[in-house]
Amino acid sequence: MQIDGQPYRTVWEAPQGQNIQIIDQRHLPFALVIEDLETVDDVARAIADMHVRGAGCIGATAGYGAYLAACQAYEASDPEEALLQLTDQLLGTRPTAVNLRWAIERQRAALTNLPPADWPSRALATAGAIADEDAAACARIGEHGVALIEELAQTKAPGEAVHILTHCNAGWLAFVDHGSATAPIYAAHDRGLKVHVWVDETRPRNQGARLTAWELGQHGVAHTVIADNAGGHLMQRGEVDLVITGTDRTTRAGDVANKIGTYLKALAAHDNDIPFYVALPSSTFDWDLADGRDIPIEERAPEEVTTLSGRPCAPGEAGTNTDEALIQLCPDTSPAANPAFDITPRHLVTGLITERGICDADEEAIGNLFPEHVPS
Amino acid sequence: MQIDGQPYRTVWEAPQGQNIQIIDQRHLPFALVIEDLETVDDVARAIADMHVRGAGCIGATAGYGAYLAACQAYEASDPEEALLQLTDQLLGTRPTAVNLRWAIERQRAALTNLPPADWPSRALATAGAIADEDAAACARIGEHGVALIEELAQTKAPGEAVHILTHCNAGWLAFVDHGSATAPIYAAHDRGLKVHVWVDETRPRNQGARLTAWELGQHGVAHTVIADNAGGHLMQRGEVDLVITGTDRTTRAGDVANKIGTYLKALAAHDNDIPFYVALPSSTFDWDLADGRDIPIEERAPEEVTTLSGRPCAPGEAGTNTDEALIQLCPDTSPAANPAFDITPRHLVTGLITERGICDADEEAIGNLFPEHVPS
Repeated sequence: MQIDGQPYRTVWEAPQGQNIQIIDQRHLPFALVIEDLETVDDVARAIADMHVRGAGCIGATAGYGAYLAACQAYEASDPEEALLQLTDQLLGTRPTAVNLRWAIERQRAALTNLPPADWPSRALATAGAIADEDAAACARIGEHGVALIEELAQTKAPGEAVHILTHCNAGWLAFVDHGSATAPIYAAHDRGLKVHVWVDETRPRNQGARLTAWELGQHGVAHTVIADNAGGHLMQRGEVDLVITGTDRTTRAGDVANKIGTYLKALAAHDNDIPFYVALPSSTFDWDLADGRDIPIEERAPEEVTTLSGRPCAPGEAGTNTDEALIQLCPDTSPAANPAFDITPRHLVTGLITERGICDADEEAIGNLFPEHVPS
Repeated sequence: MQIDGQPYRTVWEAPQGQNIQIIDQRHLPFALVIEDLETVDDVARAIADMHVRGAGCIGATAGYGAYLAACQAYEASDPEEALLQLTDQLLGTRPTAVNLRWAIERQRAALTNLPPADWPSRALATAGAIADEDAAACARIGEHGVALIEELAQTKAPGEAVHILTHCNAGWLAFVDHGSATAPIYAAHDRGLKVHVWVDETRPRNQGARLTAWELGQHGVAHTVIADNAGGHLMQRGEVDLVITGTDRTTRAGDVANKIGTYLKALAAHDNDIPFYVALPSSTFDWDLADGRDIPIEERAPEEVTTLSGRPCAPGEAGTNTDEALIQLCPDTSPAANPAFDITPRHLVTGLITERGICDADEEAIGNLFPEHVPS
């Protein structure tokens, strides 16, 4: 997608040398920092310290990290052992990230039985393929999902926008390109449809206010940031036509784990007869689980609730520093709780937008689209 | 209620001299600032600049402000004209605050046909009565509402708390004492029942994180601050037994206007069979309206969404300054919308807790409790 009119991905091979480059997302939206990653150490730190985040983006970065591992290992005294150690280092950065493990294992398999001298070129090709496939899956989600927006656009007066609400960041910054929830939105925008996005700020970490607002703005998509509390009211007033969110994990029966607060928006959409769609590449399905209540919910640090970081500013003026400041929001002695995800039960989900098409959020419909995952 | 073990109200007559004193709530929770108000100018500024806020608290402060007006007016060359001008000045501070107008009109009526020399003593008595009546109404809300908590406590194992979720600040800081939503909670706590309160931070202005958390903590009530997004998940997991909120305006048929986000919590409570109560003194009923959709919703400044104020701090450490810092949360070019209230339709409200008792949220039940407002 575009930044200042130039096309970008979240991770890519540097124009020269054995480096990769990423957008260091910690500094968004206040500074666009492109970071060179030259070693496996660099990549491990970038993943662990969340310079990059989001399932697809982590997987692709790990794929390129394995390429750097191959470059470092192939001339070692014991190349096999060196490769194993270096890729293990990458695996240890975010132990629960499914795409990370999948990318590393794919790279290892690709290099098995290959002469070490051929590792760098093969690993680079595999890393490129992982990134391209992620981008292509998201593009297909966009092609399938845009039909929903086109249908809504036909109900609008000329010049009137289709209003789409989204929660958190399931944008291109979380993948390699296009995003999941945003892919249909970018596809609609690029086809000249008039769209406007309500961006939930998404406390506590504000990925909506920071990342989704920034990427939509850079690509030229009209949007408005709102407090997480506002979406229900906007739906009651007829100001939302469609909700699209991403998901961190969806069961084979269609229960959706996503950023905390998604469930509340699904309830409001249901109460106001507004379609609620979840966009996901099929790698996000958990084929082993049916009931969303079996998904463990991560409890994160209370400081994410009791404090907040942003750019120092004066009333009525945008800030100019790129360094952020941290502020305390609660009394010293007040504890906080911070569940990171919630479960939206399948009956509140109008449909799932996948790279193979749109289906109902139920086991049979999902199985029809992905028969290879149905136990025979 | 208690601050550092001492009983306080939000506004009171100073121990000596013709002054009144308030808690300047702008500095909470990081500093307890007691402000002396010596003139009508002082009171007008305190109300207009939100040193005090909340319907009951504004009304009582205006009542004491009218006492200062009487003190300034009774020796003037034209006392009647001086009183009218000074009380008009108070009326102009928050034009839509119903309790403010009501308190001023009550003071004017009390002084009519009285010799000016008697004004100060009469106005002080009336101001005291306004404050006492507000506190008494809230205390009665507490007495009626505590029955709900007692009933839930009987279903708990010994030592297990009743978990109550609240949104925004409908605490004693918004009234003279006790609060509306908090009154049953304080009553339960003072009777030795074990209660624990989930405090929605309540973006964008964070009255939950700042004020409700502070007043509960000062009075010794166990509580936990959560992002507004978290309440639905906690309800799904069985960690909420009861929701109690306040209201800014409730129609005679039981539709509830309250801080933005209340509707989302009501939906989640309904979806999880959790009782959802609204606590209000009867002065908050709008007897002229039946349908909540006719209540106009204030759209406030977008800067309340795009920026946030708090106490500068370092990671892992509480701040020590009492001066706050402002931070920017969104990209410079991203607009924001900021509807301040939403409407919770009556069918999502389990009941209303008033100073006369608890009733269903419907026109007949409300009319039975307040027959003097039923058109004959």
